[in-house]
Formats: sequence, C-alpha cells, structure tokens
Amino acid sequence: MIERLIEKIKEKNAPIVVGLDPQLSFLPEKLMKDNFSEYGDTPEAICHALIHFNNRIVDAVADLVPAVKPQIAMYEQFGLSGLAAYRETIRYCKEKGLIVIGDVKRGDIGSTSAAYATAHLGKIRVGYETYAPFDEDLATVNPYLGSDGVQPFIDVCKKEDKGIFVLVKTSNPSSGEFQDLLFDGKPLYQIVGEKVEEWGERLRHGNYSDVGAVVGATYPEVGKVMREVMPHTFILVPGYGAQGGTAEDLKYYFDKDGLGAIVNSSRGIIAAYKNEKYASYGAEGFADAARAAVLDMKEDIAKATGW
Amino acid sequence: MIERLIEKIKEKNAPIVVGLDPQLSFLPEKLMKDNFSEYGDTPEAICHALIHFNNRIVDAVADLVPAVKPQIAMYEQFGLSGLAAYRETIRYCKEKGLIVIGDVKRGDIGSTSAAYATAHLGKIRVGYETYAPFDEDLATVNPYLGSDGVQPFIDVCKKEDKGIFVLVKTSNPSSGEFQDLLFDGKPLYQIVGEKVEEWGERLRHGNYSDVGAVVGATYPEVGKVMREVMPHTFILVPGYGAQGGTAEDLKYYFDKDGLGAIVNSSRGIIAAYKNEKYASYGAEGFADAARAAVLDMKEDIAKATGW
Repeated sequence: MIERLIEKIKEKNAPIVVGLDPQLSFLPEKLMKDNFSEYGDTPEAICHALIHFNNRIVDAVADLVPAVKPQIAMYEQFGLSGLAAYRETIRYCKEKGLIVIGDVKRGDIGSTSAAYATAHLGKIRVGYETYAPFDEDLATVNPYLGSDGVQPFIDVCKKEDKGIFVLVKTSNPSSGEFQDLLFDGKPLYQIVGEKVEEWGERLRHGNYSDVGAVVGATYPEVGKVMREVMPHTFILVPGYGAQGGTAEDLKYYFDKDGLGAIVNSSRGIIAAYKNEKYASYGAEGFADAARAAVLDMKEDIAKATGW
Repeated sequence: MIERLIEKIKEKNAPIVVGLDPQLSFLPEKLMKDNFSEYGDTPEAICHALIHFNNRIVDAVADLVPAVKPQIAMYEQFGLSGLAAYRETIRYCKEKGLIVIGDVKRGDIGSTSAAYATAHLGKIRVGYETYAPFDEDLATVNPYLGSDGVQPFIDVCKKEDKGIFVLVKTSNPSSGEFQDLLFDGKPLYQIVGEKVEEWGERLRHGNYSDVGAVVGATYPEVGKVMREVMPHTFILVPGYGAQGGTAEDLKYYFDKDGLGAIVNSSRGIIAAYKNEKYASYGAEGFADAARAAVLDMKEDIAKATGW
C-alpha cells in the first residue's frame, strides 16, 4: 500500500491529505435546510447532508491531493445514519481515485483487534459472497495494548495490501501527559516509535513500510528525532494549521527527497469559507474555498519539502 | 451512574458482567442456516443471526446478572449491518433491565473525543427531535492521548449520568510492553490509574465515581496495588476464565465489602455449550448452557467477594 501512496503523492506533487471531519457547523445553512425539508428532522437528513457536503469538497480537490482522511468519530456521533455517510464517503473518494485513510484509532486485544482490522481493512465472507465492511486503504491504530493488539492489523495489511498509521505522538496539548514520560531517559513515544519501525520490518516496499506512525505537527523537535528513529516509517502529520503547526515546523518530518511524511489539514480546508481569508467565496462557495485553501497549503508545504 | 451499577450488583448478588462478543463460530449451525435461508448470503442475515443469538442469551441470564458488555468490534466487523445488531442488542438489554457497558475503547483529541462521547453516551439534537445514537450506559475509553482526550467523555458522563472505564492495565499477554514501563520506579499503568482517580474526583457518588478503570484479571498483584492506588475507582476486570484469571486471583480487586469491581466473562458464558463441562446442553441449548455457566461463575466469584 505505502508505495501506492508515495506514487500518488509524487503524481499530485503534494504530500497532503484532506481531513474529511465535517462538524454540522461547517455545513452551509442552505445545504442543511434542503436535506431537512426532504428527509425531516431525522438522522437520515444529516447523513445525506454530510454526503452532499463531502462529495462537493472531494469534487473540488480530487485532482490536487493524493488522499483523504475521514475521521470516523464525526460520523459515528450520528449513529448508524452517520456511519452510512462514512461508508459512502469512502466509496465516493475511492471512485475518484483518492487513497482513503480511515482515522479510526482502533486498538484492542487479539481476536478483537482482528475484528477491527477486518472491519476497516479486510473482508468478510458470507456464504458464497465477499464483502469489504468499511474498505479504507489505511487506518490509524492505538498502540496502548502492545504488540498483540497491533499484530492482527499487520496480518490484514499483508493479506489485503493495506496499511496502518500507529499513534506515536499526538498533536493535542495533553499528549505529553503519558507519551512524554521518560523511561531510562527515553520518552514513551520514542519507545512506541521504535516498536512501529520493528512492526514494519516485514512489510517494507522500497524505503518505507506499510506500518506508518502518527506524529503531530505541533512538536517539531519530536518530528526531527522520530524521522531518525524510524527511518523506514512513513509519518502521518496532524495538527497543521488550525492546531498551530506551520510548514517551517514540518521540514524535519520529511526525508532528503521530501518524502516520508504526509500532512493532514481538516477544518483549514473543509471549513475554509469560514476563514476571513476565503470569506469572499461565501457559504455557497464552500467547495471552491476548500480548493483555494488546498492550493495555498501546497505552496506552503513546498517550503518544507523543498519541492 | 456508578451508584445504579452498584445497586444492581447488590440486587443480583453478582459482581458479574456478561460479555456479548459473539463470533460467528459461536452461533449454532441451525440458527445460521435459518437466517441465511430467510435473508440470503448477506450481511443482513448475519445481523439477524447475531440479534437472535444475543436475545436468547439475554433472556436466559437477565435475572442473574446486573450488566452486559457488548464488544463493538465483533459487530463493526460486519459493517453497518453488524452495527445495527449492536444497537438493537443495547436496546434489548436495557429493555430487560440490564446495565450496558459498551466495550468501544474509543479515545481521540478534543472535539473528536467529544463526538465519540456523543455517539456512545450522549444525545444529538436534530431539528426538534433528540436521538441517542448508540445509548450505552457506560463505555470503555483509551487513555493514550491524555486528559484532553478523556475530558469530553467526563463532560458527557456528568450531563447524562453515564460512566466510563478507562484502560489502565489490560489482560493480554503483551499489555506490559508499554503499560509496565517504569517511570521513576512507577509503572505507566499506575500513573494512568492515578490520573483516573483524579479524573473521577468530581463525579463521585458515595465511595465510587463514574470514572472507572479496566484492570485485567491476569495480573492479580497489579489488582492489589491498583485497588489501593485508586480507592474511589470501580474496576472492570476482563480476563477471567478463558484468558486464565481465577477467582482466587480476583479477591484483591474487591474492597472489604466485596464491592469495587465487576468481573467480565465473554466466551466462557456465551459459548459455554462448546465447553466439555456444558456439552450436554448441545448447540440448541446454548442459552441454557450460558445460564448454567453464569450460575457456576456466581458461585466461583463469591469466593473472591466473600458473599
């Protein structure tokens, strides 16, 4: 999988992933109203509104970026209807040639992790038929339960040519509470990072493996160390833009060829029309505003990659 | 919420939770065949088979235990149809007066954790209507992202009178890989446990708070320490039975009144008919076998509580 992601990044000349994390407050009033008049005050109306919103964003940016990252929590909060929108968003993005990173942060033990891996990266056989339940290309995984919680994901990655990004150092303010604790002088995130590099050993394609890591943009000094600690691990970088990370902070996350990392922006793109800079697009022009924000981000990230 | 759980435990005289984690291999062949003939080779057939299986187990044990713990991964692996079975199982269990612990192990940052908290413990407002997306009573939460990943769950617990169990020390073989790392001589799980005790401070009802902890049965010496480190934290104990934990191992998890912990058994109960001891019930008697296994477990756990 990782070589397909790298190829797409080169093709689009953009190590950028658009986070499809719609909050209802991001959706233009008219789009909401139209769906409520059609489906009533129901979760179904929200489901259709989310799909409509995402599809227009995807249409506007699909030629510019290699990948999208829908955050499943934003759909799960609307129950089954929300998850139906999540599933449809994945289908639509793949139809448009985009690689889909499911930001699901799942992780459990043994057979339970295997069930999550099947849900998001695998297939189920029902009688003579085969189904891919959610069918993301890659998924984020929580490492707290250790190797036997991650191994089932690795097994499915190998079988189905998929990939994962394991949480190493997250971008939130309290990420250091546990992740920065020092064990024999080494922070927990580094110990986790070393494991990630090890887990990926048998899934390497060229310089990188199908087992990637999440390292937030908000701690550039960490990015520098982790790029060295995990030389064969692709890094998914959240926290750019809205959370405070800048392109200058990001240069250490990339290797000498400007590869090895992909930077996520969610609300900075999908809610760009709410930002003063893109306000002239108006609520109806939300998709065009998103496109403009991606173009600006590409230019900004080029400072970090040297492309 | 925690005082309701304690009241139910006393009423049923059983600090026991039945894990509703059905694997397809647990379902009797006839039950599978009946649903496949009715719904074809579709995920819907599996959905109906899971609901049928769970409902019969629940009917057989509802008068004996205070709570059930469906493991969402086992449903999520069948996509939207599986999650519909998960939702219906929660509804049915609550109708039967059982407290439902959603084993979802969610956890993310800020607004994303808030979305998960809404999904599982909260409500959404759609126009003039209000919906509870999954509507569990309590949910398990992963602490790796720190306080700002857990706080949104605590906020929803307070608002909706719900509860959480935060992963502290899990029951799987590799749980020690990160959780046992020593920080100034103190293992990570203990540092997390101290935080759990702190997070629960403002949600105490009597001796215990709505913020509980998961501590596996497979490490009894850890249970002893954590019972002392977290005096106001209710402990959810996985790993009894199939994973190797015995009643003797469990006595330290309880307080002097035999309260403070609830022990989970999943396959030991729901797949009891596959165990030699209960084989005489046969596949068709799977629910009666589950009831017999619960009665035996009650007797066994009484050795730990002294009831």
